[in-house]
Amino acid sequence: MSDSPAGTSLYNSDTIIALATPSGIGAIGVIRLSGPDAISLVNEVFGGKDLSIQHSHTIHFGTIKDGKQVLDEVLVSIFIGPRSYTRENVVEISTHGSAFIIENIIKLLIRKGARPANPGEFTLRAFLNGQLDLSQAEAVADLIASNSQASHQVAMQQMRGGFSSELQHLRDQLIHFASMIELELDFGEEDVEFANRDDLKGLIYQIQRILHRLIQSFEQGNVMKNGVPVVIAGKPNVGKSTLLNALLNEERAIVSEIAGTTRDTVEDHMIIGGINFRFIDTAGIRDTEDIIEAKGVERTHAKIKEAKLIIYLVDPEQDVEEIVEQMKYIESLGIPFLTVVNKEDLLTAEFEQEVSGIRYQGSGGGDPDNRQQTADNILLISARNKTGIEELKSEILRKVNLHSINTDDVLVSNIRHLEALQKTEESLNRVLQNIDQPITSDFLASDIKQALYYLGEITGQVTTDDLLETIFSKFCIGK
Amino acid sequence: MSDSPAGTSLYNSDTIIALATPSGIGAIGVIRLSGPDAISLVNEVFGGKDLSIQHSHTIHFGTIKDGKQVLDEVLVSIFIGPRSYTRENVVEISTHGSAFIIENIIKLLIRKGARPANPGEFTLRAFLNGQLDLSQAEAVADLIASNSQASHQVAMQQMRGGFSSELQHLRDQLIHFASMIELELDFGEEDVEFANRDDLKGLIYQIQRILHRLIQSFEQGNVMKNGVPVVIAGKPNVGKSTLLNALLNEERAIVSEIAGTTRDTVEDHMIIGGINFRFIDTAGIRDTEDIIEAKGVERTHAKIKEAKLIIYLVDPEQDVEEIVEQMKYIESLGIPFLTVVNKEDLLTAEFEQEVSGIRYQGSGGGDPDNRQQTADNILLISARNKTGIEELKSEILRKVNLHSINTDDVLVSNIRHLEALQKTEESLNRVLQNIDQPITSDFLASDIKQALYYLGEITGQVTTDDLLETIFSKFCIGK
Repeated sequence: MSDSPAGTSLYNSDTIIALATPSGIGAIGVIRLSGPDAISLVNEVFGGKDLSIQHSHTIHFGTIKDGKQVLDEVLVSIFIGPRSYTRENVVEISTHGSAFIIENIIKLLIRKGARPANPGEFTLRAFLNGQLDLSQAEAVADLIASNSQASHQVAMQQMRGGFSSELQHLRDQLIHFASMIELELDFGEEDVEFANRDDLKGLIYQIQRILHRLIQSFEQGNVMKNGVPVVIAGKPNVGKSTLLNALLNEERAIVSEIAGTTRDTVEDHMIIGGINFRFIDTAGIRDTEDIIEAKGVERTHAKIKEAKLIIYLVDPEQDVEEIVEQMKYIESLGIPFLTVVNKEDLLTAEFEQEVSGIRYQGSGGGDPDNRQQTADNILLISARNKTGIEELKSEILRKVNLHSINTDDVLVSNIRHLEALQKTEESLNRVLQNIDQPITSDFLASDIKQALYYLGEITGQVTTDDLLETIFSKFCIGK
Repeated sequence: MSDSPAGTSLYNSDTIIALATPSGIGAIGVIRLSGPDAISLVNEVFGGKDLSIQHSHTIHFGTIKDGKQVLDEVLVSIFIGPRSYTRENVVEISTHGSAFIIENIIKLLIRKGARPANPGEFTLRAFLNGQLDLSQAEAVADLIASNSQASHQVAMQQMRGGFSSELQHLRDQLIHFASMIELELDFGEEDVEFANRDDLKGLIYQIQRILHRLIQSFEQGNVMKNGVPVVIAGKPNVGKSTLLNALLNEERAIVSEIAGTTRDTVEDHMIIGGINFRFIDTAGIRDTEDIIEAKGVERTHAKIKEAKLIIYLVDPEQDVEEIVEQMKYIESLGIPFLTVVNKEDLLTAEFEQEVSGIRYQGSGGGDPDNRQQTADNILLISARNKTGIEELKSEILRKVNLHSINTDDVLVSNIRHLEALQKTEESLNRVLQNIDQPITSDFLASDIKQALYYLGEITGQVTTDDLLETIFSKFCIGK
């Protein structure tokens, strides 16, 4: 256990280089260097002003030359440490977006002494040099991966340190008590109490409330970051893919509005109300008969259980008895669900009445939550004519029951953080269990230290090389 | 015909915006704005210093905010016109490389009054504002597309104006004579000669020599830009794809050395000696029997005729009579070719002697060029054991017979330029034909003007909106 991140063996003082922009065809590419020699290395191959005497945060036009051969006309941006992302000297070379040019400039600078950066190594250095704490560094990767308002917001808030300051505050208070108890230990056999036990209990209750809130926030944070898993169930040809397309079409129009920012087409994802919904391919359970048949099949069942929402799509010409049976099964799963009647133009008054009948019949049993769900209106849509789609979207959002995504609350979205928070909570529970027992202070001290350790793991005050490698290897190169 | 590029209707004085980096996953993305309001628009949404009072070529850290919501922490680079790519005010926003963030920042700035840029519109503005001439602007697109040392070099030289200055010089001299002859016309019936006919002839001969050299350079320039088309012929299972792989493997190792700059795998392209070779899929003529059978088939034949080189791959266990027949056919095509014996481990002294026999036999007929080719050594390789591959590469380069690709000569690589040069030459030829004839000066003046027109088309002193649209629509958005 090291409390000094700079003590890690991952710290290197050489100068690293990588392409910071995506590879592919574009107007420009940006090559980034960081390290003590970043400016002097680029200066060696730069045709233009002397870069070594320029101010920080300035841009210089010139050429990159390999001997006499001009590789490109470029703009070079100078950042003098500590006023940079990594707190080291940083140079960004903005080139024409040709893979050939980029490759050759990087090769040239490697020949001059730069080293190809590992994934996330720029951000690792920012962390090791104290620019960001670990949870902020992790948020950088989340921010780059963010693809919806919700995931963006969770990552942005974490990167800007909302999470860190809250934890830091808790940790500081605990450290105070830990040191008091340590002091008691110094006095050995004497029965002195520097740390008032009631104050300590008071503090721990207070911390537990905050921990509890953070742990509870994970459900929302995770959904905001990773999206809401939704299963669409229904007989074949009931209109599931038409419905998906109807939902997707509007979204696509927005995405393609801004030329040049097209994303990969992802058939099964869509953003509704700023939240990413993942429509799960349940393979064997594309219709409710399969769901029922699959009751015993462990894996399929697990997939359904993962869903935060089931949309049960019904055809008005479908057998009503069948619908009753399927709705009962879905209700028994205890997952929020929406019954949606497609092809509303085919709807008969008779069918409507019968389905309403099921609704109230269904609402008779089960726990109050389920009764609530079943008592909701059945939605009428036409996927083909695109009627009722807006209402369906609103209902999906309402069902998922997220608190406002425009919340200022600190949300935990990282499973590593969740686990550390849970372990902190457990350690503090042990402190509370022992505090009134006639045991020596060193047990208390040990559990408080455990709690401090886990809290420190989140922000990186406590790290191991393994942990850092695991975290930063998931970054892209150049970040 | 307009001699003032700014007279085009394509010129707009609004502020344009686009993503300048490739879309996809990367550490950063760069959004570029150009126009009179570039700085003030970004300033409206920027949380940080007042951008409107900053110096050109400076970088500023801050946030981009949509109302109270922070979209990203960014670096903003300021370029104050005319010290910018477009000679207008330019702002570059360096964001985290998330499609969501980029899309939302672009949307926000469009709401504030920016307009999504058309393909190549930044470079169009650079041209219209006199930063680049038209051939230089075209070279920017070539530079971005360049994927080999050769294509890079041709584009870089053209972008840096080597081509332009040579043409400008010719044009200036012609303009002088044109104005002299115009002056003669003013005197109408009087028999005055301000333009000395012998001097004019001298100048035209001089210009014709330069035009001739430029037109001749197209063959090399085109091959350097677009690659060398090569047909590999040979019986099935003679080892064609093993040979391609043997050639490709080394290249791939080099490409993947620099992580983050991987290109799309292009099975049929490879760089040898800095030149891009395109191995043509001749579909129906994958073996030489097909070549022979296909003699009458127009399209297949045309593909072979396109090749700058045929590699004829032979198996030592193949029937020698067959080889003789096929080599004779290939020789008759008049295209440089290499006979390569694969599986050299299977080679017998007898076979070697027989094939050598063919060689000298073949060299008896045909024109001297073909005799030269046929007299070359037959190469022995083993594609599987990777022996003889380096020798084959050297021989391929020698056969293609490019003058050094490290030439400082001005090379024409653009078919539009070639056509304009040829038309200039034709117009000047008419001047030479007429100059000694008893015709009035206005015929001379008209042909000289035609020559000036075509020369001006290359550098863009003469343009039409159609021409500009054709050229810039091929650019990527953001350039």
